[in-house]
Amino acid sequence: MVSDNISYNSVGMPLKEQIEKIRTEMHTAGADAFLVTSNANMFYAVGQVVMGYLYIPLEGAPILFVRRPLGLEIATPLHYVRKPEQITEIMAEHGIPLPQQIMLEGDLLTHSEWMRLEAIFPKAKTMNGTPALQRARCIKTEAEIELLRISGKRHAAAYRRIPELYKSGMTDLQLSIEIEREMRLAGCLGFFRIFGQSMEIFMGSVLAGSNACEASPYDFALGGQGMHPSIPVGANNSVLRAGMSVQVDMGGNFTGYMTDMTRTYSVGKLSEKAYRAHQTALEIQERIVEMLRPGVVCEDIYNRSLEMAKRSGLDCCFMGMRQQARFVGHGVGIEINEAPVIGARSRTELAPGMALAVEPKFVIEGVGATGIENTFVITANGNEKLTALDEEIIDISL
Amino acid sequence: MVSDNISYNSVGMPLKEQIEKIRTEMHTAGADAFLVTSNANMFYAVGQVVMGYLYIPLEGAPILFVRRPLGLEIATPLHYVRKPEQITEIMAEHGIPLPQQIMLEGDLLTHSEWMRLEAIFPKAKTMNGTPALQRARCIKTEAEIELLRISGKRHAAAYRRIPELYKSGMTDLQLSIEIEREMRLAGCLGFFRIFGQSMEIFMGSVLAGSNACEASPYDFALGGQGMHPSIPVGANNSVLRAGMSVQVDMGGNFTGYMTDMTRTYSVGKLSEKAYRAHQTALEIQERIVEMLRPGVVCEDIYNRSLEMAKRSGLDCCFMGMRQQARFVGHGVGIEINEAPVIGARSRTELAPGMALAVEPKFVIEGVGATGIENTFVITANGNEKLTALDEEIIDISL
Repeated sequence: MVSDNISYNSVGMPLKEQIEKIRTEMHTAGADAFLVTSNANMFYAVGQVVMGYLYIPLEGAPILFVRRPLGLEIATPLHYVRKPEQITEIMAEHGIPLPQQIMLEGDLLTHSEWMRLEAIFPKAKTMNGTPALQRARCIKTEAEIELLRISGKRHAAAYRRIPELYKSGMTDLQLSIEIEREMRLAGCLGFFRIFGQSMEIFMGSVLAGSNACEASPYDFALGGQGMHPSIPVGANNSVLRAGMSVQVDMGGNFTGYMTDMTRTYSVGKLSEKAYRAHQTALEIQERIVEMLRPGVVCEDIYNRSLEMAKRSGLDCCFMGMRQQARFVGHGVGIEINEAPVIGARSRTELAPGMALAVEPKFVIEGVGATGIENTFVITANGNEKLTALDEEIIDISL
Repeated sequence: MVSDNISYNSVGMPLKEQIEKIRTEMHTAGADAFLVTSNANMFYAVGQVVMGYLYIPLEGAPILFVRRPLGLEIATPLHYVRKPEQITEIMAEHGIPLPQQIMLEGDLLTHSEWMRLEAIFPKAKTMNGTPALQRARCIKTEAEIELLRISGKRHAAAYRRIPELYKSGMTDLQLSIEIEREMRLAGCLGFFRIFGQSMEIFMGSVLAGSNACEASPYDFALGGQGMHPSIPVGANNSVLRAGMSVQVDMGGNFTGYMTDMTRTYSVGKLSEKAYRAHQTALEIQERIVEMLRPGVVCEDIYNRSLEMAKRSGLDCCFMGMRQQARFVGHGVGIEINEAPVIGARSRTELAPGMALAVEPKFVIEGVGATGIENTFVITANGNEKLTALDEEIIDISL
């Protein structure tokens, strides 16, 4: 059964808390306006994807300039435009002062778009507002955390059915297709939102056996050859055989806010080394969970994880084999790869409201991937796990 | 059964014909180098997605600067880099002259990326190479056309099973989920590649009943409310009832090259007006097919279609109702929205090798969407249809 999508109208408009967070960052950076236009940031600030421009002055009501859809109802000044050049004309008509230092999304707008928007405000200094918006977004509001909680619950509920979906003789792709369907029936929106254009994936990945060793062009924790050179990540149509691990890592976009979650399964018994690696991953997770509290520095968590991998003699297959990721976790939210990164040289201090996916994983030659991933929210003095489900390796052939 | 993905190694590397087409455009525009970095253009030029930079000089071998994946084997000079600044260092070491006028992907690179790449070539004039690459890509090679043919055949094969997937009492979303699974089992890669960042969709859309009237922020032919304000397009969990049309429009990415295809179904009988609108759409398609030959101008096709819609008194619901698309077709290939657009003010002349989706559609109040979409390739003196399948409205409740 498809769940009711209870979150549809649970996000009000305009989103005061989000706007205030953006303004705090603007103020710190000395900007007096922000022009938001990317889909993800529009959803963040307005509660829905709109094609257009949200003009956020440091003071006064944000103004939404909309290209599509027609007939939008929203509780903020709204003007329909055909092109961005109308923004300043409309501002002049309404006696709204032009900005002096305006933030644009420099890490999201194409160069052509940036040049066009910059030309609209010829007297203003333009600043790259992407880092400021990422800082604002990385501390979730209570309402956002609640959306993540819902995603986590549904994500876990869909995963609980994975062992039933396996049939002897299946390929990794066939199992993936059944899991995708299960996720969709549980309410997953399917669409996998990623910051930037360099990473691409369908709904997530199922990695079985030696495919887990395959290096990918994308910056995910693990790779996989994929089905085609146009999207080289994930399942590669390997037949699932006894002795293989099967690692499922699908994006949990049930509410516009994504949880990230990995569980490892086996077909029959795995090698002793694989179980030991999985146990080590769980111990690393346990240690990380102790560190997931305000004030801890991200790189310390990564370094501690790497140290534990080394101590167990498994560092050469920690976070990949031929190509190893230099992180053990990452922020999640509207996009799967938000700030902060729990990786080498990440000096960010954890703070309440951060949502983080933690994913210690090992790749064992001849077996496949082992390990775990869960999504947590940092609380006032610790953390809350959003993706609760058995963490041991389940033999799906039984 | 999951089909073998026969196209995996059917694309050779480096892709001489593609590189030659890019060079022709470079030469015309006066550029002596092109630095390609987006995933879609990398796949176009190299035959696989690589994270890195392909440096194409006007003469001499293209050089691939790779960040990921490790262990890549490719028949062109290849250097691993950690950052783009190493490109010019390596070129200097190998005595390769620096460019004087270099094309960068101005409509794809973010502003920050553009600034960084531009700084690497301080003495070169930089030019936006996106339009040149779009022109190169819009005329497909024989190998590309063959990949589109394969996509079209598999796409049609998956659609053939749609009537069997319907069960009484289903919602549009539940039907969509079963169609998605069928597409995946037929070899669809799932990932839906779109040029630009403003359009987002999962695998495609299923529009039933009045949801077909809902305006979307995205620039697709039709909209739909979608399941959530973070991805407002397509199915909205409407229960499928007698008298509704059900229009299926999924992306056919089976080979890295996408066909586009729409078929309309009904639950029981539709209104007379709906059948008449569907018949008009088929007649418009028939007229368009006559015009799909080298030398015809795109806007003439659109204007002719609009004229036929007007003559039948259905122009107010042609290509949408509350929000009407101003095109009746579009190029397809690696991305679903390639050049040219068959729309108002599109002066492009058709030429052999262009791949085009043609989609005359009407939205009928109280019924839903009607009409058709097929993908064609322009040949020396006409066209070839790639998505052959019954075009009448099939009653899925029978």
